[in-house]
Parts: sequence; structure tokens; C-alpha cells
Amino acid sequence: MNGQRPWSFRMTDTRAQVQRWDGLVLGASIATLDEDGYGAIHDGALAWRGDTLAWVGARADLPGAPAELAREVIEASGWITPGLVDCHTHLVFAGDRAREFEMRLQGASYEEIARSGGGIVSSVRAVRESVEDDLFAQSVARARALVADGATTLEIKSGYGLDLENERKMLRVARRIGTELGITVRTTYLAAHALPPEFAGRPDAYIDAVIEWLPVLHAEGLVDAVDAFCEGIGFSPAQTRRVFEAARALGLPVKLHADQLSDLGGAGLVAEFGGLSADHVEHSSLDGVRAMAEAGAVAVLLPGAFHVLRETKLPPLDAFREHGVRMALATDCNPGTSPLQSMRQAMQLACTHFRLTPEEALRGATVHAAQALGLPDRGVLRTGARADFVLWDIAHPAELGYWLGGRLVRAVYAAGTRLAP
Amino acid sequence: MNGQRPWSFRMTDTRAQVQRWDGLVLGASIATLDEDGYGAIHDGALAWRGDTLAWVGARADLPGAPAELAREVIEASGWITPGLVDCHTHLVFAGDRAREFEMRLQGASYEEIARSGGGIVSSVRAVRESVEDDLFAQSVARARALVADGATTLEIKSGYGLDLENERKMLRVARRIGTELGITVRTTYLAAHALPPEFAGRPDAYIDAVIEWLPVLHAEGLVDAVDAFCEGIGFSPAQTRRVFEAARALGLPVKLHADQLSDLGGAGLVAEFGGLSADHVEHSSLDGVRAMAEAGAVAVLLPGAFHVLRETKLPPLDAFREHGVRMALATDCNPGTSPLQSMRQAMQLACTHFRLTPEEALRGATVHAAQALGLPDRGVLRTGARADFVLWDIAHPAELGYWLGGRLVRAVYAAGTRLAP
Ligand SMILES: [Zn+2]
Ligand SMILES: [Zn+2]
Repeated sequence: MNGQRPWSFRMTDTRAQVQRWDGLVLGASIATLDEDGYGAIHDGALAWRGDTLAWVGARADLPGAPAELAREVIEASGWITPGLVDCHTHLVFAGDRAREFEMRLQGASYEEIARSGGGIVSSVRAVRESVEDDLFAQSVARARALVADGATTLEIKSGYGLDLENERKMLRVARRIGTELGITVRTTYLAAHALPPEFAGRPDAYIDAVIEWLPVLHAEGLVDAVDAFCEGIGFSPAQTRRVFEAARALGLPVKLHADQLSDLGGAGLVAEFGGLSADHVEHSSLDGVRAMAEAGAVAVLLPGAFHVLRETKLPPLDAFREHGVRMALATDCNPGTSPLQSMRQAMQLACTHFRLTPEEALRGATVHAAQALGLPDRGVLRTGARADFVLWDIAHPAELGYWLGGRLVRAVYAAGTRLAP
Repeated sequence: MNGQRPWSFRMTDTRAQVQRWDGLVLGASIATLDEDGYGAIHDGALAWRGDTLAWVGARADLPGAPAELAREVIEASGWITPGLVDCHTHLVFAGDRAREFEMRLQGASYEEIARSGGGIVSSVRAVRESVEDDLFAQSVARARALVADGATTLEIKSGYGLDLENERKMLRVARRIGTELGITVRTTYLAAHALPPEFAGRPDAYIDAVIEWLPVLHAEGLVDAVDAFCEGIGFSPAQTRRVFEAARALGLPVKLHADQLSDLGGAGLVAEFGGLSADHVEHSSLDGVRAMAEAGAVAVLLPGAFHVLRETKLPPLDAFREHGVRMALATDCNPGTSPLQSMRQAMQLACTHFRLTPEEALRGATVHAAQALGLPDRGVLRTGARADFVLWDIAHPAELGYWLGGRLVRAVYAAGTRLAP
């Protein structure tokens, strides 16, 4: 038979050698986060096919010889973690507010800063005046910095346009960042961020407009979720509720800037609407925590703003732990209160200011952050998950919450494609 | 004459066109720091020849056409600052102490950490066990990260060897980092950092040894300055004085870890010996401040350790300002209390925790830091200064103290040579 059908045999032989995986990383430790204690696998093997993880385990358990299993085999050291997920950013903006930061440190009052054109109004003006291409160029640089330090999924909010045309411009720029960088961008409609000058004294009329614009932008495919700034200096719970009802009518999930400066019951409102997350939550009450736990809402902690504003009121961390509320971390990247362009730095600040353990910080920057975006396909490393992962030049995963600055990334992969550095 | 001596004429002609400068950057704003208010020059021109700045001013004042003035002409935007000077680091070390950081956040006591092999002793053990090449490889990565974020001069201390052979190893590695990266490294002998286990209970005998090793290492060209850790948990003022006297006998300048946790009069001791700087200085008294002012010693602020240790006692900043004591900033890069690998992040922490203005932070990271190392040839941008400068992708120099993370460096030059990125 061998002599009779040699080609057939050769073909069978070849078919047996067709590698089933596109890539395979060997030798690094893997923080799968699929179990307690980092879910660590030492001398690991992680393989992907297309945009999906095909195999995660110990090298010793591989079902064959690496070169026969994968087209590309990479010998590595250090650690592999899931790609980091930044689940709360305002990174699409124009200009910066470093000069305002400087005035504050020179002793200027908020009034003086406002009079000199500072504050959120200055960001609104800058976004409205910017051409879409310029807004993109400025914003994509920040997204690149986040990716270079390990992020593969970004949430980006609107909220500096505050009219239909400029909210659209921001959300289009956000979508374009995802396409340009090859990462996942989830957009959040945050027109209820501040009252634009043309609606001064008429917040309810502005909420009418916010609700009118939402289905328009949603129909253009620009909105993945809806958010509001529920605060004494923002919008009231009643106004927030109206925005949430509009979101619900479109089947859109909600999240909320909740209880940052005072307890307005934001956490409970998120829970009531089955929202993805309540964010900031420094002042949330025990009732709010219980409601979040029941509803399965994630608490998104934003240590950058806490740091820059030198806040002292900690979120109810022990209550979150006790009631099983998952804690996520995010940069809150924005020009006014959190000029933070690195998830690692958010982790460091969370460990320092909030006393999170490095493991809590890493879960907060991966699996819990993915849950805060309603993305169950990432944030852990297991077969079938999206092939978003980072290879780090570190000896222990606690280093991710330990260093300020430094260059720890060896490679970032999103959907099986290498992005950086 | 033209017909008679064509070559002579051609030569003269050529000579007139010989460009006098090696490089010229045009169009960026320049923070010279040579005057108040950043010493800003807009639409600037900065030229160098060899390792020295040859011309700094406004483009409009250039003495000719750029192409005729310089071999390489670079059109730029953004800002140029002096190369950053990190005047206090312990960046030569082996291993890291991220696991200890984690244990602390998991609630372990200092005793438990010490029992599990943590603390400075673990760094001493790791350095002693490391081969020189490995110690170099680990340490140079941190130096590269500092350079990539704008540093062109680093001070590096010994102090994890604590015997002749291992202090030598550390200082040799420090020198090699300077050569390898093409930057200036200033070495500081800090054998009086901690008491090694073999001298337990015999600190004075250890100081004898420290004093004995100093001339040996100095003769090998390994020591630029001498430092000690003067503290209740370190060495006494009397022991420090003995080390300083040994330094003075060799003509070496001194600096001191002074008054970090308590006021032992460290600032005054530095002043008495005409030292370059007193570092940390959170607890320095007004008498100490006055003595420093009189002696011209620089106050080196270390906001990384302040941040990580969550200290609350601020250095006497207003007294420093009032008495004209120059304030420098440094990373204090070390594995135990300041895992900080970026001068920009040190500036951000100084603005946030110490309320330094961004201008004070930038002076602290450049001209004052250079003075803390006794290097009058850098830290400002003027003709004749060393051609160490950074081109930043920023719209305002306050951004250098504003962002956490991000990628702001467009180019780093040391001694007229481009190093990064
Ligand atoms: Zn926000
Ligand atoms: Zn130190």
C-alpha cells in the first residue's frame, strides 16, 4: 500500500503536520486569574488561533511538540497576564489643563481659574473648536500610551461636546481609535456630564436634549452604554433617572459617576437599573453597597482623581469585600482631575492610597474591569477567551502594582495580533 | 587672481561654508531655566558643537541661515528642557521587593516580613549573591527607563554590598551604566547605609571598616561623593561625623540621608562639612534650614518614599523658600521604599504631595539637582553648558509635573548625542 499510494500517504502526513495554532508562548509564568492567588501557572504555555485563546496550561501538559502545534513559537520568561482593561476614561479631549494645574499650585482660587477660562468649560470649548482629525490625533496619542503599558480594551466617554454634533464627533473619534490601534473600544454616551453654557439655568431642558440626541447617536452605531454625572455640582438623581430610562428604552446598559463628592444614592440607582457599574463611589452608603451586591454591579475605583484631588474619604472597600461587590480600577484619564495615562500607575495608586493588594489591583484592571464593560470574553486567560494578553518583564505579578514609571512591557497582544512595543 | 589661484579661492569659499555647529533644533519653545518663569524662549533655536551648547536663543536672532550654520538642522515643535538630573538613586540592586510590598498590603507586620527574609537585608543578600554581569543587566534596565523619560545624569549610591568586595561591585556596575548608556553617572559611597549581619551589635567597628574601605575604592576611581544614613535606625550623628571626616581627608564632597524619620540634626551636620546636599529632610529644624542656607547646601526632596510610605510630615518647604535653600527632586529609586523609575513621576508626586509648583519641580529636576551633585555645567540651557537636553511633545512645561504615565519624550540628547527613544 505504501508503494501504491505514496502521494496520498504524503498528504495524510502533511495534514497531520498542519499546525493547529497561530502562536504559542512558552516558558513564562501565567497569571490566568481563573482561580484565587493569581491562578498562576509556572513554565506555562499559551496558544491562540485567530483572535481566540486555544490552549492555556503548563508546558509539560502540551499535547505535542511545540513546532508541530503552532506556526510561531516564542520562548519567553517573565509573566503573562490578561490584557489590561481600562473601563473608565475621558481620553478624547482637546488641549490639556496643565496650566490650570499650575495656577492651582501657584495658589489661584477656583474662581480665578474659572475667570481665566479654566475648568471643564475650557475642555468643552476646546473640543467644540477642534476639527475631528485634530481631536483624533491628540487623543490617539493617549490611547497609544495606555496600550504601550498593557491596555488592550478601553472605554471612552463623550461629555465634552454637550451638543449633538460635538458629542458625535467625540464618539466617532473614540471608534476610530479602536480601529486604528486594533484594540477594543467601548463607547459611553455621557452628554449628562455638565451643563453647557447655552443651557445655563435650564438643566431639565438640557436633559430633554440629552434624551433626544441619544437615539440619533445610537442609530449611528456610536453608543455602547450610557453614563451621567450624578452629583450636587452635576445632575440630580431625578435627572439621572430620566437619562437611564431613555437608555433602557433602547436596551442600552448604564453606568454612573456615583457618590464621588457626596452620597446622592447613586449606587442604589445603578442597582435599580441593573447597571454595569457605579464609578468613584467614595461616599456610597452601606445600603448602596448592598444594592450593588444584589444587582451584581461592579464598583469602579478611580485612584487617579483621588490622588490628584488629594481626597481623604476612602470608598467603602471593606464593605465591598464583605458583600462580594467586585472592584474594578480605571485611569479616569481626563485633563482636569486625573491626568493618568497608564493602568499600571492606576494600580500603583490603588495599592498606595486604597491599600488594595496587588492581586486585587490586577483583578480590578482585568477581569473585574471587563465585567464593568459587560465583556465576559476577556480579563482571564483560558481556552476560548479573547487572545488579549501582555508579556511582562517581571519576576512577580505584584510588580505591576509596585513600580512607578519603568518599562515592564515586553509585548502586548490584542485578538492574537502583536501591537506593542 | 581668480584665474591664478582657483584652488585657494575655492578653499576659502569652502571654509566660509564649513558649518560651525554639529546640530541645530529650530521651532520648539525652550525652557532655559536661566531666568525666572522657565526662562522661556518661543520659536527657539538651540545649537551644539561636540558635547557643548554653542547657541541658545530665538530663531529670529540666528546669525545666519540654518543650513549654513549646522550640519544637521531639526525642525521641531513642543518644548526643550535641560536633560533631567536624578541626584539620588539606589538603582543598582538585585531582585526586587514587590513580594514584600504585597505582604505589607496583605496585612503582614514588619516582623513577619523580616522573618520571611524581607527588608534591606534581603537586598544585601541579593547583591552579595549576584554576579557582576547580572547585577549590571538588572540595574541598567532601570537606568534605561530613567533615560527614556528624560534623564541624562544619574547619581547612583552603593550601600547594599556592605563589605569591600560588594560595595566595589556596585560602584563598578554604576560606572559601567554611565559608559554603556552614554550618560553621566556620579557615584556615591554609601557603605554607612545599614549594619551588615556580620557586624551586628558593633556599629562602631563597622564604621571603622567603612572608613578603611573608602580610600581603597577612591583610589580605584569609583567614588565621587560620600553619603550615610543618619537616623535612629541607621547611624548616629557621631558615627556620621567620622565618615564625613574620612571623606574630607580625601577631598571628597559629602551628602546625607538626613532627618527623614526624626530630627537628629542631619541638616546642620551637612552644613558644617560644606556638603552638597541634605536629602529627605522631612524633619529638619529651622536651625538646620538656616545652616543649610548659609552653607549653600541643596535640599533634596524624595517624594517617592513619602508617597509609598504614606508619610504625612512635609519637609519645611516654606522655610526653604524663605531662606533661599534650593530644592532638588530625585527618584530615590530603590526596591524597598521608592520603586520609582521616572523623574517625571517624581515631579508629579512632588506637585501633588508637596504642592511644589511645576516650575519648582522642573528646577528641582534640573538645575538644582545638578547643584546637588556639584555639576555647574548643566541643568540650564545656555551657551557653554553641556549639550544635555530633552525635546518634549508637550504644549506647556507644566505638563511635566502633571501627567502620570504617558509618553512625552520625543528625543533625549546627552553631550550632543541622541540617546532615546
Ligand atoms: Zn469620570
Ligand atoms: Zn536614599
